[in-house]
Amino acid sequence: MSNDRIWTAALIVIGDEILSGRTQDANIAQLAKWLNLQGIRLKEVRVVADDMDSIGEAVNALRVTNDYLFTTGGIGPTHDDITVDAISAALGLSVVIHPVARGILEEYYATRGGVTEARLRMARVPDGAELVENRLSGAPGLRIGNIFILAGVPHIAALMLDGLNGKLEGGKPLIARTLGCWVAESEVADLLSATEKAHEGVQIGSYPFFREGRVGANFVIRSTEMPVLDACLADLATRLSQKGLEPVEDGI
Amino acid sequence: MSNDRIWTAALIVIGDEILSGRTQDANIAQLAKWLNLQGIRLKEVRVVADDMDSIGEAVNALRVTNDYLFTTGGIGPTHDDITVDAISAALGLSVVIHPVARGILEEYYATRGGVTEARLRMARVPDGAELVENRLSGAPGLRIGNIFILAGVPHIAALMLDGLNGKLEGGKPLIARTLGCWVAESEVADLLSATEKAHEGVQIGSYPFFREGRVGANFVIRSTEMPVLDACLADLATRLSQKGLEPVEDGI
Repeated sequence: MSNDRIWTAALIVIGDEILSGRTQDANIAQLAKWLNLQGIRLKEVRVVADDMDSIGEAVNALRVTNDYLFTTGGIGPTHDDITVDAISAALGLSVVIHPVARGILEEYYATRGGVTEARLRMARVPDGAELVENRLSGAPGLRIGNIFILAGVPHIAALMLDGLNGKLEGGKPLIARTLGCWVAESEVADLLSATEKAHEGVQIGSYPFFREGRVGANFVIRSTEMPVLDACLADLATRLSQKGLEPVEDGI
Repeated sequence: MSNDRIWTAALIVIGDEILSGRTQDANIAQLAKWLNLQGIRLKEVRVVADDMDSIGEAVNALRVTNDYLFTTGGIGPTHDDITVDAISAALGLSVVIHPVARGILEEYYATRGGVTEARLRMARVPDGAELVENRLSGAPGLRIGNIFILAGVPHIAALMLDGLNGKLEGGKPLIARTLGCWVAESEVADLLSATEKAHEGVQIGSYPFFREGRVGANFVIRSTEMPVLDACLADLATRLSQKGLEPVEDGI
């Protein structure tokens, strides 16, 4: 397998609360940053409702087109937590009680009123799933094949990702550097395009903003190769300076 | 057509900056809230890269399964702005210069250096598209069929949505009320499920949180019918009180 193989992941954010606008999603950016560190690229995200068919369809579409698939949300103890059922159905697996997950819940709830039927829901897994540790609340995340089933509450999802750190095979991390400039991006569109073309293996993104009554843009240069990235950054800075602009390292 | 018809929309967020974690998306929640006011439900969101095929595939999948499709991002003047090209290709339409969009740009840039070739990119539209006004920066949004093409910068997207206010046919708005409670949601899981079942046309979502060292949850009740919503809310408050809990109106 080539050293340059690109490893990809997709994310399914499960939850009516995101689609209703009640909750501002924080899991997309959190997972994206964590994946960057593992050398894995987030290729696509879908946000779907708490609905068996919607979840199942997204799972089956994305698990085969990516090396890894993550889901967040819907693994709690209440009636609207249907992620395990939906993924099991999508994979043609039955839902079973995981004995270790049950043990974790029994220990966690020993001093909190014991494991009720509702709480036992959190030990239900697709048959064959492994647990992904969650040091905080007892309810574990799950791994079944290339699918990672995480909590919807961002700081619990973060703890589960901590537990997965360094355990997933990835490729070279995509590195990014930013140059900011007080300029309308339309004035430097040709310059950006020419700079990108002059440096193979580099993408330049242009992100305009309006601040303090002025227009500006941040130019983000991405590559897996540090020397290529550095050369492109220096070239872009030179070209902007030659136009009488003052590029700002690390962005504005 | 029935009065109870549910109108739906999907959103495609276009941009490497969201998938890399560099930018925290704000358009999902913004569009979701705006759609609620129009009586339209956001059913699915996809976040895709600045890539012709990824955009085209998502567009063709979602435009036929929803009444409306919105996109955000990729309509600026730089080389990474390919939304118009990708949507035109997906629909089998050619890309043309819209004379009114060109006029708007000429007026806007008259005192800002004139319309360059890069700026003229912002007047390119799928053949047959109408403009969606943008009072701020001159570059308009677009409508082609049931597809609305909006800016990626959230406050510009907001201005374009302002211009569309009340212009899209919708159904009854989904209304939501919240009860908060300092309780582990697993302790009231059965109660929530029973309450939802007792009130037809109501969904109850349970959203746990950890704050001030304590666990709690907000229960969000959703319905299109105010009397049904009120009855369910009162019933849930009674059931929680009967368990010795103190429900908090409008959430914690």
